[in-house]
Amino acid sequence: MKDSITSREKDYSEWYQDIIETAELAEHGPVRGTMIIKPYGYALWEITQQYLDKKFKELGVKNAYFPLFIPESFLKKEESHVEGFSPEVAVVTHAGGKKLEEPIVVRPTSETIMYDAFSRWIHSYRDLPLLINQWANVVRWEMRPRLFMRTTEFLWQEGHTAHATNEEADSWARNMLKVYENFAKEIMAIPVIPGQKSESEKFAGALHTYTIEAMMQDGKALQFATSHNLGQNFAKAFDVSFSDENNSPQFVWQTSWGLSTRTIGGLIMAHSDDRGLVLPPNIAPIKAVIIPIWNSEETKKLVLGKAKELRVALAPLTVEVDETEGRPGEKHYKWEKKGVPVRIELGPRDVEAGTMVIVRRDTGEKFTVPLSEINKVEETLSNIQTSLYEIALSRQIERIKKVDTWEEFKQEIEKGNFVLAHWSGDVAVEKEIKEETKATIRCIPFDQIAEDGKCIKSGASSKGRVIFAKAY
Amino acid sequence: MKDSITSREKDYSEWYQDIIETAELAEHGPVRGTMIIKPYGYALWEITQQYLDKKFKELGVKNAYFPLFIPESFLKKEESHVEGFSPEVAVVTHAGGKKLEEPIVVRPTSETIMYDAFSRWIHSYRDLPLLINQWANVVRWEMRPRLFMRTTEFLWQEGHTAHATNEEADSWARNMLKVYENFAKEIMAIPVIPGQKSESEKFAGALHTYTIEAMMQDGKALQFATSHNLGQNFAKAFDVSFSDENNSPQFVWQTSWGLSTRTIGGLIMAHSDDRGLVLPPNIAPIKAVIIPIWNSEETKKLVLGKAKELRVALAPLTVEVDETEGRPGEKHYKWEKKGVPVRIELGPRDVEAGTMVIVRRDTGEKFTVPLSEINKVEETLSNIQTSLYEIALSRQIERIKKVDTWEEFKQEIEKGNFVLAHWSGDVAVEKEIKEETKATIRCIPFDQIAEDGKCIKSGASSKGRVIFAKAY
Repeated sequence: MKDSITSREKDYSEWYQDIIETAELAEHGPVRGTMIIKPYGYALWEITQQYLDKKFKELGVKNAYFPLFIPESFLKKEESHVEGFSPEVAVVTHAGGKKLEEPIVVRPTSETIMYDAFSRWIHSYRDLPLLINQWANVVRWEMRPRLFMRTTEFLWQEGHTAHATNEEADSWARNMLKVYENFAKEIMAIPVIPGQKSESEKFAGALHTYTIEAMMQDGKALQFATSHNLGQNFAKAFDVSFSDENNSPQFVWQTSWGLSTRTIGGLIMAHSDDRGLVLPPNIAPIKAVIIPIWNSEETKKLVLGKAKELRVALAPLTVEVDETEGRPGEKHYKWEKKGVPVRIELGPRDVEAGTMVIVRRDTGEKFTVPLSEINKVEETLSNIQTSLYEIALSRQIERIKKVDTWEEFKQEIEKGNFVLAHWSGDVAVEKEIKEETKATIRCIPFDQIAEDGKCIKSGASSKGRVIFAKAY
Repeated sequence: MKDSITSREKDYSEWYQDIIETAELAEHGPVRGTMIIKPYGYALWEITQQYLDKKFKELGVKNAYFPLFIPESFLKKEESHVEGFSPEVAVVTHAGGKKLEEPIVVRPTSETIMYDAFSRWIHSYRDLPLLINQWANVVRWEMRPRLFMRTTEFLWQEGHTAHATNEEADSWARNMLKVYENFAKEIMAIPVIPGQKSESEKFAGALHTYTIEAMMQDGKALQFATSHNLGQNFAKAFDVSFSDENNSPQFVWQTSWGLSTRTIGGLIMAHSDDRGLVLPPNIAPIKAVIIPIWNSEETKKLVLGKAKELRVALAPLTVEVDETEGRPGEKHYKWEKKGVPVRIELGPRDVEAGTMVIVRRDTGEKFTVPLSEINKVEETLSNIQTSLYEIALSRQIERIKKVDTWEEFKQEIEKGNFVLAHWSGDVAVEKEIKEETKATIRCIPFDQIAEDGKCIKSGASSKGRVIFAKAY
């Protein structure tokens, strides 16, 4: 196993790989682009699931499960949907020892198979809103795989709803984006920019795509989660209709919204440093590790006993006691790489003095507190959570550059910043910009200020600024 | 939607379908053999997951996630494994718009892909035991699909462990079977017979397969869950080895164990009646439903208010108040079909008298209790749980027939009973019996009594009786 970590400055991409390897989060699977999520990495996903699942259920969403296999013909029913996904799908042609009559697509997303069922489930306005979510694996063939960020198979939740009106659907889609925004902030300590995707960046088949965009340490953007107002596009393709209060037939208005294991890639990139993974306490599977230090059998017994007492006193916080043999320095290093937020050092002198040494993973700050003040541990965790968020937020604020000339635009993008610039809405210009700089429109921010200006590239008149950046 | 339920006597298989449809548990997916698990059916799986996941974690098992896609070559590394699974696999031949160089198998189970990783993860005896579980979907092409019981894709958990000794592995495999047995009994109220599979019925690649077998109402057996002692078969095929305390290389000893959505099929068949689904309270997503009865706006307000108070008082039990318009009779029927264990009827006279009427779904028993005695609801739930288990257990005891002649054997199998009969261990005879009667050896029960006898079919000498039955 790899032991040292490449610095961010030397090779950011190598650093990212090293963090994942040394923290034992994941590894590549044997089929190109697939990923094995190791227990410590999967624990991050479980905490994500617990948070979101609870929020969804509070909002009245019910979990269900739809098949992995979709008839190829289903995908073709919504025109822009099939165009968007065709190049990425994996196709089953043989099964049970025979060639299949109709090829089967491994789901890249479940709009088509779910809405075929919705068309049978929904009859009247009394069946609305229908609020369904599923936790599932999906497959999108990936040409440039990268652990967590881009994998051929990934895990996610996909929510799908049907409503009686466009207003209700749109407000639902925005509300779910807010759930994701809160998750990013409260749990992963990641500030995000909420906004709307441009026409060319929106989901294949959607009316509007809402997104939250996060800035990584290298200044690249990560699309953290999206929520789509699907309008009636799929409703018409799959005949999802209902009788309204006046008994007249209407198509439903739909939304879909998803968050995937990709967010774990964002989590790694948002906070980690050259010494390894850094985890915000609210997503850390292990909140603190106690390192007992001894120099004889006698002090070992004394210190271990006290360490275990301390772990019990800290419940329900998940705390580990590292009882393995080995030098304290090696142990510090091991838990540092795993991003455990707080390290508690406990030696014979500490026990005698009734104290413990608390060390913050994020800042390295060290302080001695009485063993009786166990609330200091929770306080420290809370400080780390706040501080990681604030650092990420300052970085984001500082690295969003408002520019008004094309030269400046290119320079700032080249430096790895986000750029806030005027754009007229012209898709062709958006494409030109992407080809020349690799920057894409990340979103039209919800808090966009109405302002007359000229498109940064074409000079055409514009009503406001949008966010450009290179993206993962 | 179907409204009436075929009786068990008339057509057992039709009855099973009707229960699933009227309780809104699941439906067929568009690709043959696949299944859509509807919210109410999925809630049963979520309760299953919560129970098992907690037990696994208490035993030190960690969750992880391995890829859906397995290189075809992996499956071929363990000889009997590939023989067992080849006829059932779905194969991806095209992806990302191109034909693949090596076909990919959609996992039918994950031994091969996991143990390839285990061979990299395990180095020394200090890495053992390795205790991994995953919650996942798997695909086995199904010729005679039946909702929950046999579906091309199903959901399950698969646990995989590696140990230093055969004794430890074997005891782990047996212990996990015990976890499943407790789940069947405590949560699903299903009595099971634990035992070992015969050589021809064991898992493809295992040394021993342990199983728990449940009897359905038609007398057929359902393999409820299995746990395998894999010996060193896969360890040798995938080179999963470790240095022992003396620094000498050893192959690990492995186990795998799984429980799937199939158990929900067993749950339905074990307790339901001709009026619909019957759920044991411990697995019921809704423990009780309150049916408020009113005859004026005034009494509606009064009764609904009291119903909601009652629901709050019953927390944390999940209780619904059926506020919909419609006759009480229709509502009773609706919740009966969904198998909600307890119905509470509350009318204006009840509110005045300070009473409620409790109705048991399983027996139809009705009794009036003071509203203040809300513990009566919990008591009733507990009684239902016990009673459903006892009825299933009596049926099982009564329908296991000890027989000593071939004529009797055929008669009892024909009647739909389990048969306890002598068998010498001869695989050819086992096959003959299956061909002639469709009965298979369900297990060699753990509580088999050592007894000299003669094989029921061949007359060869035998040391004990095994369980024969027709099976799902």
